[in-house]
Amino acid sequence: MKPDRDAPIGVFDSGVGGLTVAREIMRNLPSEKIVYFGDTARVPYGGKSRENIIRYSRQIIHFLMEQQVKAIVIACNTASAFALEAVRDEFDVPILGVIEPGARVAAAETKNKRVGVIGTVGTVDSGIHASYLKKLDPEITVIGKACPLFVPLVEEGWLHDPVTAEVTARYLQEFKDKDVDTLILGCTHYPLIRSVIREFMGEEVRLVNPAYETALELRSLLEKKELLNTGGKTEEFPYRFYVSDLAEKFRAFAGSILPYDVEMTKKIDIEKY
Amino acid sequence: MKPDRDAPIGVFDSGVGGLTVAREIMRNLPSEKIVYFGDTARVPYGGKSRENIIRYSRQIIHFLMEQQVKAIVIACNTASAFALEAVRDEFDVPILGVIEPGARVAAAETKNKRVGVIGTVGTVDSGIHASYLKKLDPEITVIGKACPLFVPLVEEGWLHDPVTAEVTARYLQEFKDKDVDTLILGCTHYPLIRSVIREFMGEEVRLVNPAYETALELRSLLEKKELLNTGGKTEEFPYRFYVSDLAEKFRAFAGSILPYDVEMTKKIDIEKY
Repeated sequence: MKPDRDAPIGVFDSGVGGLTVAREIMRNLPSEKIVYFGDTARVPYGGKSRENIIRYSRQIIHFLMEQQVKAIVIACNTASAFALEAVRDEFDVPILGVIEPGARVAAAETKNKRVGVIGTVGTVDSGIHASYLKKLDPEITVIGKACPLFVPLVEEGWLHDPVTAEVTARYLQEFKDKDVDTLILGCTHYPLIRSVIREFMGEEVRLVNPAYETALELRSLLEKKELLNTGGKTEEFPYRFYVSDLAEKFRAFAGSILPYDVEMTKKIDIEKY
Repeated sequence: MKPDRDAPIGVFDSGVGGLTVAREIMRNLPSEKIVYFGDTARVPYGGKSRENIIRYSRQIIHFLMEQQVKAIVIACNTASAFALEAVRDEFDVPILGVIEPGARVAAAETKNKRVGVIGTVGTVDSGIHASYLKKLDPEITVIGKACPLFVPLVEEGWLHDPVTAEVTARYLQEFKDKDVDTLILGCTHYPLIRSVIREFMGEEVRLVNPAYETALELRSLLEKKELLNTGGKTEEFPYRFYVSDLAEKFRAFAGSILPYDVEMTKKIDIEKY
């Protein structure tokens, strides 16, 4: 059975970070319903193995399929890097990751063909951005750098802070030395410290936020498949949030990303899927 | 069946941090075998809910019981805070946490009865140190402070670093202002930045490392139960390491804590327990 235009979009992440992607979808596809799943019991994915990330992603997609979604966005860069290719053909709905849309824009916009990528250890070590970018333009040089302190700094709320600025300088100096003109923010938390990154890298470097690019790509995809919801909103609040651990942290942090209280969070035993 | 003196001790943690506790047991009880489990698939526990931490701890204890351990040490402060009381009476072997031994020493050594506790959000919010300390001495004032950036800083290897010093100053200033004379390092990673903490707090403040105190308490407990292994080592290498995720990180980090390669790490599907 073909899902209808009215069905929700499934969005998942290792935790709260993917809400920055959900937010872009809400902004750019305002008629769409969203079912969000944050794997707060197993967060973070960044330092974990490919094998486990694939298993986790499959479980979550099974859960989202039960919610009868018409498309799925893997909002987590690490899960996109490790699991997208493995799971894409196993399910009956289109599945989109955040790596490809970001890479496509970076390839289109770099002038000197020197692109930087920052993300978790898992994402950066996977080399997946480089493999997409090289496919798009073999002349592009890709420089990757894992920035494991950025997520805890964001979650601590130190968004405009001398410590964050110092850590940023430490992590990103290499990109200046190597003269990159385009930097992909390859982790969902990083747009939240965009201004600190901008200040260090300077105005001339293009910062790519894959969340925004993914929302645009999702719209094209839904249009192409005749699944775009073009009607008005049918529900007062068309967003549902599920987590695997009911820690208070999710709600608190969600409140700092989304412009409303995320009160209706439900806990799912994700290991059953 | 009463376990014999020759049986191993089970030690578990959310990840690698508990190796600082295992290390103290190795040093102080050199004739004992150890089975270590690090829950690297679900690490960290620090921001997760009591309910899930108890479930995880039960699963791990079931696994350790299968290894026929004679005693179990919950090397993780968060798991000790949330799960020890819940699981202690469910199993046939003595189970020890890291909170009580640290609290006991702090209560004995504070002169001005002002004790500080640093740890994860979960540990600090649980108030468990305060509840032990007040039982030991109702006049003690306990000041707790969650320090979520310490673990990622340690895991990044920034042990002697200006950024770590600045974060330390930010987190610990309150203890100076409130004149604590004893500070409990209530997370297994923190002894690894002891020197930075020492430098900020000054020589006159007593830093309590619960790992060491727990090893001593384990020895007393085993003696009392006639379970202490007093013979020499029977195996060349009497330590076994298990994890729930085979990320390279465990081995790399283990190598920085223990004085030998942890090559024989085996992966366990902990959700089956």
